[in-house]
Amino acid sequence: MKTDELRLVPGKDVRLAAIDPRSTFGLDKKSAGIAELASDCSRLTELQEIFAAARSRSLLIVLQGMDSAGKDGAIKHVMSGVNPQGVDVYGFKAPTDVEVAHDFLWRCERVLPERGRIAIFNRSYYEEVIVVRVHEDLLARESATPEKDIWAERFEDINAFEHHLARNGTIVLKFFLHLSKDEQRKRLLARLDDEDKNWKFSVNDIRERRYWDEYQVAYERMLGATTTAWAPWYVIPADKKWFVRAAVASVIIEKLDSLGLHYPHLTGEAAGQLKEFRQQLEAE
Amino acid sequence: MKTDELRLVPGKDVRLAAIDPRSTFGLDKKSAGIAELASDCSRLTELQEIFAAARSRSLLIVLQGMDSAGKDGAIKHVMSGVNPQGVDVYGFKAPTDVEVAHDFLWRCERVLPERGRIAIFNRSYYEEVIVVRVHEDLLARESATPEKDIWAERFEDINAFEHHLARNGTIVLKFFLHLSKDEQRKRLLARLDDEDKNWKFSVNDIRERRYWDEYQVAYERMLGATTTAWAPWYVIPADKKWFVRAAVASVIIEKLDSLGLHYPHLTGEAAGQLKEFRQQLEAE
Repeated sequence: MKTDELRLVPGKDVRLAAIDPRSTFGLDKKSAGIAELASDCSRLTELQEIFAAARSRSLLIVLQGMDSAGKDGAIKHVMSGVNPQGVDVYGFKAPTDVEVAHDFLWRCERVLPERGRIAIFNRSYYEEVIVVRVHEDLLARESATPEKDIWAERFEDINAFEHHLARNGTIVLKFFLHLSKDEQRKRLLARLDDEDKNWKFSVNDIRERRYWDEYQVAYERMLGATTTAWAPWYVIPADKKWFVRAAVASVIIEKLDSLGLHYPHLTGEAAGQLKEFRQQLEAE
Repeated sequence: MKTDELRLVPGKDVRLAAIDPRSTFGLDKKSAGIAELASDCSRLTELQEIFAAARSRSLLIVLQGMDSAGKDGAIKHVMSGVNPQGVDVYGFKAPTDVEVAHDFLWRCERVLPERGRIAIFNRSYYEEVIVVRVHEDLLARESATPEKDIWAERFEDINAFEHHLARNGTIVLKFFLHLSKDEQRKRLLARLDDEDKNWKFSVNDIRERRYWDEYQVAYERMLGATTTAWAPWYVIPADKKWFVRAAVASVIIEKLDSLGLHYPHLTGEAAGQLKEFRQQLEAE
C-alpha cells in the first residue's frame, strides 16, 4: 500500500469533504486487504521484538476519530499478534478532577512510552482541541489561562510538545479515522439492534452526533495545524473497517522498517564473558 | 526589596562575572534582611492559604545553582512557615534507568503541581543543559535524537514547555543562586571541618568543582536563552545566605500578591444551603 497518499502535508488546509471515507487507495477487494493485514501482522510482531530489544526509540501512536469510527477495532486487529509486554494502550475519557487541575497535556505525558516500548493513545490530548472546542463550556473546568487565541496556542503547544518528543527518541504517528455520517448511523443502529453490542452504546453518542458538522470543522482545523514533519497525521478513510486495519498496519510497519533496527550484538568484554560462560557450561 | 533588579531581561546575553555574588541590592545589613524575611514568611503563609483555597493557579519554583549555593537552605527558611500540605519539594539527582529512557522533561512533568499547589524543584530539567552539557558523555545514556544543535533545541523545548505551562494555569519562577568560587571553597571546607556536616559532603563535589568555569559558561548560556516573559530567571547573589532567603521570599510574595487572589465566596444555591444548614444547627 502507498501510505504517502494517506499522509497530510504540513502547511496545507484540510478539507475532509474532499476525502472519500469509502476509498481504499489501490486495495480494491476486502479479501486482498485482509490478506495484506495478515502478512503485515506477522511482520509487525517481528519488528516489535527487534524494537523492544534495540531499546533505542519509543513509538507513540495516536488514534482519533468520531465515535464508532473503528479505533478499538484497529487496535485489536492490528496489535493482536504483538507481544503485549511491549505495548501499552491508554484510553482517554473525560478527565478526572486531578487531571483537569493540571495543564492539558499532563495526563498524557505521564504515560509516555520509554525506549523500546509502544504506547497507543485511544483518543488523546487532541480531544482538548476537538471536544473542548465543540463544547467550549468544558474549558471552565480547566486550568486554561490563554494569552490570546486559545486554539492557536494549543496547536502551538502540541506541536512544540511533539517536536520535543521527536527530538528525544520518540516516533509519533497519528491516525484520524475518517468516517461518514451515514456509516456512523448504520453502526450506531447495529449497536442498538444487537443486544451483545448494546454495552458499547451510550446516550452520549446520540447527543454528540448532533454536533457532527462542528466536529468536522474542529477536526479539519486541528489536522491542518498539527500535521508536521516530525509528527504527521494520516487520514484513514474509515467506512470500511478492513481498510482501516490494513492501512494503519502498513503505516506502522513502514515506519519501523525505515529505522533499520536490529538485535543488539554484544562486542568486546561482554562477548568475551559469554564465550567464557559457554566454556564453563560445556565443561560441566 | 526591588526584585526587578534581580530578574533577567529576555533577549540579552548574560555575563555572570559582571554580577557580584556578594551584593545585597539595597538591603545592607544582615539584621535588616532577617527581619524582612521574618515578616515575609508570615505573609507567605497567608498567601499560600489563599492560593490553596482559590485553586485557580499552580506555582512552580525552580532552584538551580552550584553545589553549596544554598538551595536547600532557601527552601528550608523560606517555606518553613507554609503549610506543608500545599507544597511539594522534589530533588532531581542522577536519573534512574526508567527516567533516562524517556524524553528529558518527562520525570519533571510527572510531578507538576495541580491548581492550588506549589511545587519546588531543587534542581530540575535545567540540569539537562548544565551538567549534561559540561559532561557531554552523559548524553549517551539518554534518548536524544537531535536534528541539529542539541543545546539550541533543548532551550527551544524548555521555553515551549514553560510557555505551555504558563498558558495553562501554572506560574513559573526560576532562581539561579549565584555563588562565588571562593565562597564555595569556604563552605566545602566548613563541611569537612564540622563532623555534623560531613554527611552533606560527597567526593563528587570536589570533582565537579574542577569544572567551575565550564559550569559558569553553561549557566550563562542557559540563563540567556531561557529567561522569558512567561518564565523569568532571577539571579540571586548567593555569597550571603540571609540575602538569598530574603530575596527568594520577596520574589514569591510579590508574584502571589500580584494575582489578587481571595478566598472563594459561595453564592447562589450553595450560599442558600449554608444558610439553611445554620438554621438547622441553631434549631437543634
